[in-house]
Amino acid sequence: MTQPKLAVVMAGGRGTRFWPRSRAALPKQFLAITGTETLLEQTVRRLEGAFAPEHIFVLTTEDLAEAARRQLPELPPGNILLEPEGRNTAPCLALCLVELERRVGAGVMAVLSADHWIGDREAFLGDLDVAMDHATATGDLVVFGIPPTSPETGYGYIESVGEGAVRKVAAFREKPPFDQAVAYLQSGRHTWNAGMFVWTLKDFRAALAAHAPEQLAPLDAWDGAPASLAAAYGQLPKEPIDIALMEKAGNVSVVPARFRWSDVGSWPAALAFQDADANGNVVLGDAVLVDTKDCAFFGGKRLIAAAGVEGLIVVDADDALLITHRDRAQGVKEIVERLRAEGRTELL
Amino acid sequence: MTQPKLAVVMAGGRGTRFWPRSRAALPKQFLAITGTETLLEQTVRRLEGAFAPEHIFVLTTEDLAEAARRQLPELPPGNILLEPEGRNTAPCLALCLVELERRVGAGVMAVLSADHWIGDREAFLGDLDVAMDHATATGDLVVFGIPPTSPETGYGYIESVGEGAVRKVAAFREKPPFDQAVAYLQSGRHTWNAGMFVWTLKDFRAALAAHAPEQLAPLDAWDGAPASLAAAYGQLPKEPIDIALMEKAGNVSVVPARFRWSDVGSWPAALAFQDADANGNVVLGDAVLVDTKDCAFFGGKRLIAAAGVEGLIVVDADDALLITHRDRAQGVKEIVERLRAEGRTELL
Repeated sequence: MTQPKLAVVMAGGRGTRFWPRSRAALPKQFLAITGTETLLEQTVRRLEGAFAPEHIFVLTTEDLAEAARRQLPELPPGNILLEPEGRNTAPCLALCLVELERRVGAGVMAVLSADHWIGDREAFLGDLDVAMDHATATGDLVVFGIPPTSPETGYGYIESVGEGAVRKVAAFREKPPFDQAVAYLQSGRHTWNAGMFVWTLKDFRAALAAHAPEQLAPLDAWDGAPASLAAAYGQLPKEPIDIALMEKAGNVSVVPARFRWSDVGSWPAALAFQDADANGNVVLGDAVLVDTKDCAFFGGKRLIAAAGVEGLIVVDADDALLITHRDRAQGVKEIVERLRAEGRTELL
Repeated sequence: MTQPKLAVVMAGGRGTRFWPRSRAALPKQFLAITGTETLLEQTVRRLEGAFAPEHIFVLTTEDLAEAARRQLPELPPGNILLEPEGRNTAPCLALCLVELERRVGAGVMAVLSADHWIGDREAFLGDLDVAMDHATATGDLVVFGIPPTSPETGYGYIESVGEGAVRKVAAFREKPPFDQAVAYLQSGRHTWNAGMFVWTLKDFRAALAAHAPEQLAPLDAWDGAPASLAAAYGQLPKEPIDIALMEKAGNVSVVPARFRWSDVGSWPAALAFQDADANGNVVLGDAVLVDTKDCAFFGGKRLIAAAGVEGLIVVDADDALLITHRDRAQGVKEIVERLRAEGRTELL
């Protein structure tokens, strides 16, 4: 009998790099920064037709649940699963396992991120099928690897052996120094670890039981009542799934992605996915531009007027305005840190 | 008997170069763009001690009267004189003449502009005394001339003969082409016409009667009732006082200014009068700046955050935001023209 195809979209992330549009109460995955739909909406709608709506789950925290339900009316409200608190991805996925076992029984489960951009929907769904077929046939834990296009030092790498659409994982490599990243880029055997996985519920349980039983035992002892979940969840060690499980398990395969991917890590990165006009300007909202080139205006409720400027990124929110240059936007992080240091939490 | 010293501050101007802060309902003279006080407040407070408050008059239009009264609580409310409509400076000053004759009888009157910046208050008051003494003693119409510091093509010039603190005017020269402006700059005999005048009421009446009787007759026939002023005023030809009178009168002298002066014609010009921090940034309002140099932030009700930008001028208003570069701010004019062409009058 074919196992049902399940998708879990992790949507509990927080970030500061899309300030002032992203806030504690509205992180990046809830923003339409790469198009007219939010990243969360794009992530779920990319699965339409390939997954039954009742088999698509979104995992987030209580304070973000309302935003998730509002953006995803096509999902049963009960499919928005609530993590009692953020404790990194190992506890989060262990909770998903237990919830999906309880609700669906058995199945093959894809773990996706709500705040990534993915191009080529057909290629993506095809790669998902390859991974799901492989996981079902072999019992392997499958991870997607993004073929690197630059010597990124901000991602972990997956080292594989062999050729073909599915390869055996030799090792997970931590975020490398630059020289190492260059070597990875040139090797042909290394891909970026984008945190997307495929496994059957049965094999995931077996792997956790073998390599990370402390992530499972408190949840297995949980009585299933929402009120007592927080106490059980609070016992799970705060670890990423890569360290808690993937680096330890022997039965791990990688599917090198044939789809285009971006984690959309900054305002300049988001620009790549927006259509620019003949002057290279990206305009969302109301703007009057004179003598202006290669700028991006993420407008709010007001007119933005620009004259004689180039290369700027302008983000307008009700209570704050950001102006930065597309080549010097790393300062946004420092702005947020300063606001935090000054206790201006109403702006974060 | 010494004649009373009267000051008339012309505050009816409209402009677009300080959009979005300046609006039809709040033109430049009502804005604090050169310091913490508005240009109108600075203009009137500069006269304190030298003129009795009841002898300082502000001429503006009905829709701006409330703003003028609010900014100038030190003046008797009745000293805010109302021009029924904007008809250029000759009608405006003829109306002042008639009003001041009615209220004060006789006196020597200084005509000042509400939207100019003037440095060196003592030098300015000293020059005013020189001009008033000369006008009283000789019956001349006196104009202030600003010694040029650049070959400006946007100002009219006053050509004088002789030396000293008061000189005979040989001619008024229209806004020149650039080469002519360079010649004026080098001549030592030309000063900028900043539209500031001194004359006695008696001599101004005599000059108007001789050279521009059409500016006077309808007002002399007016019965003095506010309700009938508009009809009389509407008969006065729309002309600047320079053309209607000054170019025709023979008894005109110029006082070369010893005070520093600016008509603050643009956002970049206004910056020159604001204190910058160690990075060259001028900040009015709430701002967080990272890696930012030589910028000016005229804030509104929201935080402005900037990272990695240089040389920008940012002006935040409730319903519009302007971003321009200090070296390319001439585009502000085109922004306003476009908004007008699009019928977006609520933004003007």
